[in-house]
Amino acid sequence: MLKNDLILKAARGEKVDRTPVWLMRQAGRILPEYRAVRAKLSGFKELVETPELAAEVTVQPVDLLGVDAAIIFSDILVIPEAMGLTYEMVEKKGPHFPNTISTHKDLDQLKIAHPEDLQYTIDAISITKKELNGRVPIIGFAGAPWTIFSYMVEGGGSKTFSKARKMLYNDPELSDKLLKMITESTISYLKAQIAAGANMVQIFDSWAGVLPPGHYNQFSLKYIQQIASAISEVPVTVFAKGAYFALKEMNDVSCRTVGLDWNMDVEEAKKLLPNKTLQGNLDPCALYGSFDQIEQEAHRMLDRFKGHSHIANLGHGVYPDTDPEKVKCFIEAVKSY
Amino acid sequence: MLKNDLILKAARGEKVDRTPVWLMRQAGRILPEYRAVRAKLSGFKELVETPELAAEVTVQPVDLLGVDAAIIFSDILVIPEAMGLTYEMVEKKGPHFPNTISTHKDLDQLKIAHPEDLQYTIDAISITKKELNGRVPIIGFAGAPWTIFSYMVEGGGSKTFSKARKMLYNDPELSDKLLKMITESTISYLKAQIAAGANMVQIFDSWAGVLPPGHYNQFSLKYIQQIASAISEVPVTVFAKGAYFALKEMNDVSCRTVGLDWNMDVEEAKKLLPNKTLQGNLDPCALYGSFDQIEQEAHRMLDRFKGHSHIANLGHGVYPDTDPEKVKCFIEAVKSY
Repeated sequence: MLKNDLILKAARGEKVDRTPVWLMRQAGRILPEYRAVRAKLSGFKELVETPELAAEVTVQPVDLLGVDAAIIFSDILVIPEAMGLTYEMVEKKGPHFPNTISTHKDLDQLKIAHPEDLQYTIDAISITKKELNGRVPIIGFAGAPWTIFSYMVEGGGSKTFSKARKMLYNDPELSDKLLKMITESTISYLKAQIAAGANMVQIFDSWAGVLPPGHYNQFSLKYIQQIASAISEVPVTVFAKGAYFALKEMNDVSCRTVGLDWNMDVEEAKKLLPNKTLQGNLDPCALYGSFDQIEQEAHRMLDRFKGHSHIANLGHGVYPDTDPEKVKCFIEAVKSY
Repeated sequence: MLKNDLILKAARGEKVDRTPVWLMRQAGRILPEYRAVRAKLSGFKELVETPELAAEVTVQPVDLLGVDAAIIFSDILVIPEAMGLTYEMVEKKGPHFPNTISTHKDLDQLKIAHPEDLQYTIDAISITKKELNGRVPIIGFAGAPWTIFSYMVEGGGSKTFSKARKMLYNDPELSDKLLKMITESTISYLKAQIAAGANMVQIFDSWAGVLPPGHYNQFSLKYIQQIASAISEVPVTVFAKGAYFALKEMNDVSCRTVGLDWNMDVEEAKKLLPNKTLQGNLDPCALYGSFDQIEQEAHRMLDRFKGHSHIANLGHGVYPDTDPEKVKCFIEAVKSY
């Protein structure tokens, strides 16, 4: 069915003719064609919740940049919203939750999210599937329970996430209850994404890096593993930003691919994760360089991953002010390696 | 002269009767006695620039919390200010530089800072010295050149520091020039702090963690080493937050002590840095726990560092909403171990 399944082969650890490449945040942010769609709408959330348009911006980078996979345009915060905690996306500031979770009683306002509560994303995947017509695979995604928990407790972003981390010390029982609800919601959501056509799924643990190793095992990795082990239909990728201390532990997670951020030492990761495919990890700021520099940096990165199953990507979502021509240069540099 | 020189002995790798303990950000933030001094002033900078008051809040934690060292109350951003780039401290938002550095021409407005431009901190150290009367050592400090560079280019804090990191790719020559100016300014500033009475100095590389390993060596560690090797008078500590990837390279830096953040694996650090004293690294959020929990967490941390020269501390500055009684509990737990 798929004309290009390089990324699935690489994820399964199979031999590939060349390294597949895509970019986190490729849908949205950098393309003028995306901004044109976005400009017609009231806001970011309207785009997330309008399947035809979400599918349109999902397909754009496949057409315009030549990436080897489409990632569905959505947001990790659709899960807390489907659980009963609505959020606003404040322009240039980020997400804001008017209500947050701080007591056991607050859990009463929450429910386990059902896929039908997130029908807009499921529909967006179905439409994308039709529009792509087998050109490249579709990546589905969700936030890791710890990252979603952080937003639900903090009410938004934070420098230290000290409010969310405080709860882990003060009320591990409440923390566990909430993390379990998020985990259960996420499993059925990812399964619905797969049923609608997602060929692989990625779990984003954006705030992994704020936890000490012991807490990371207890309050993040445990729930990631529950999700990963529940998904046997497609390959799973885990990207735990900043959790270099947990790389070795990723061996015990039922995922095929581990994402590396741009700080992570590739040699070390290869040694620690001999049987996992690695994804990443060019510094997103390398795309501010000249075309020659970008080609050189991309090739150097590929040199580092040599001898290991690899999916090329940046080590973070592409930054909003990146020139799309520079992104194309990066993609071409990987393809021509 | 010094009645308690535990921290200096530990820094030099000598045997100590018990592990010395202090907290990053112990001066300021948490004590009501600090807030009382602060409330009488127009703002944070007035306190930094008034030697008698800076000395007063420097001594407070020695009297009130029982720490084994005083760290001079100041800010790492006094260096860019003394170089010609003034900043404002915006309440609840952080520092803001009205002018920033983006071109070679912008360097013309800068000069190498001279210690007399920072006389207020030097005087604060002299007054602190008198007031402490040998009770505990005084720690002087400065920001690492990369961290100071980041502020001077970005104009304030940032999630990604992509503007500062962009310059490293686009104009390594300009980056080097600015980093050299900061380095030179910092060396003479730290030497003046030592001449005034600082018994040890710490270099804070707060934004170490945003650089890929290659850039960290080239644009941060190189200049830290220039500073560390210029200071032979007193022991030097380097705290590079988030730079787990550079722990091994710290062996090549002429510092006695390496600070660990709360994400860092202590066992790993002990192996990588057999001849350095290690400082840290309790999760600052552990101080939100109960008194029993804090004692337990502090003792567990001390267990981990066993067999290695160690200065007890948190893995980050103490968070502003921490109960001073909980801080005392942490300090007592270290002392009674």
